[in-house]
Amino acid sequence: MVNIRKAIKSDSSEIVKLISELAEYEKCADEAVATVEAIEKTVFCQEPKVFALMAEVETDGKLQVAGFALYFFNYSTFLAKHGIYLEDLYVRPEFRSKRVGFQLFKKLAEIAKSNDCGRIDWVVLDWNQLAIDFYKRIGAVEKDEWAGYRLQGESIDNLLNL
Amino acid sequence: MVNIRKAIKSDSSEIVKLISELAEYEKCADEAVATVEAIEKTVFCQEPKVFALMAEVETDGKLQVAGFALYFFNYSTFLAKHGIYLEDLYVRPEFRSKRVGFQLFKKLAEIAKSNDCGRIDWVVLDWNQLAIDFYKRIGAVEKDEWAGYRLQGESIDNLLNL
Repeated sequence: MVNIRKAIKSDSSEIVKLISELAEYEKCADEAVATVEAIEKTVFCQEPKVFALMAEVETDGKLQVAGFALYFFNYSTFLAKHGIYLEDLYVRPEFRSKRVGFQLFKKLAEIAKSNDCGRIDWVVLDWNQLAIDFYKRIGAVEKDEWAGYRLQGESIDNLLNL
Repeated sequence: MVNIRKAIKSDSSEIVKLISELAEYEKCADEAVATVEAIEKTVFCQEPKVFALMAEVETDGKLQVAGFALYFFNYSTFLAKHGIYLEDLYVRPEFRSKRVGFQLFKKLAEIAKSNDCGRIDWVVLDWNQLAIDFYKRIGAVEKDEWAGYRLQGESIDNLLNL
């Protein structure tokens, strides 16, 4: 039995652990520098722009954190409407194949509906076939005509000096 | 001389025109259904989650709208920090090669800096070589390991019924 609930401030340290496990899985552990303080400041502030869901599974009469999802509202100019952008979804290995990811997605679909969002978007690492197969099973399609680009760190400073 | 300023409510109908010109350029004119009312409601509401910049060029002593950019704040769990997501950037054909896109990006870099955002992210259609060349010139890198996925419309309803 999977229980999905909104994250609360006291989940912050568990969220940091989950982020670091996800980064490990995505082979970029050195990129994950999130701290409990930074999560509290951004996700559990007065007017948050980003939201988290916790997935719990009852094991031996105790609720254990099985995974989490973190999302924010994006925007489509073509629709002039907000949508949901799923930044992260992670299920701990020992809780996989228990429909935890499925229940997290179902909750996101509910949130999309109640916020008049027509879309849920996300990205996946192209070698993560396990995840890609799951996304296809729940009806997602690849946006394969679009390529992602990024300016960061020094490139932003360089641009300012041009 | 290019002038970049924050969009105001009375720009809404011009923004709708720009969105429809962009959709035409992107070969998906039928997908752009934004109305002036929907733009006013989402971009110029009390607590907007999405923001627009207007680019103007002086021609014969008159300011003309040359293009626009629309962005919102995304989030990186690895950094536990917000970033800027550039949803749209468009320069009208008659104003190209006047550094309008460059000045819009420079303004975004300033906004990134003043909001402690370490990144500016966006996507581009893979056949839009003109844009891709420009992005590379200003120092952007392709996030080529990531594939975009989407659930929308009926797929969201189907998921809710599973």
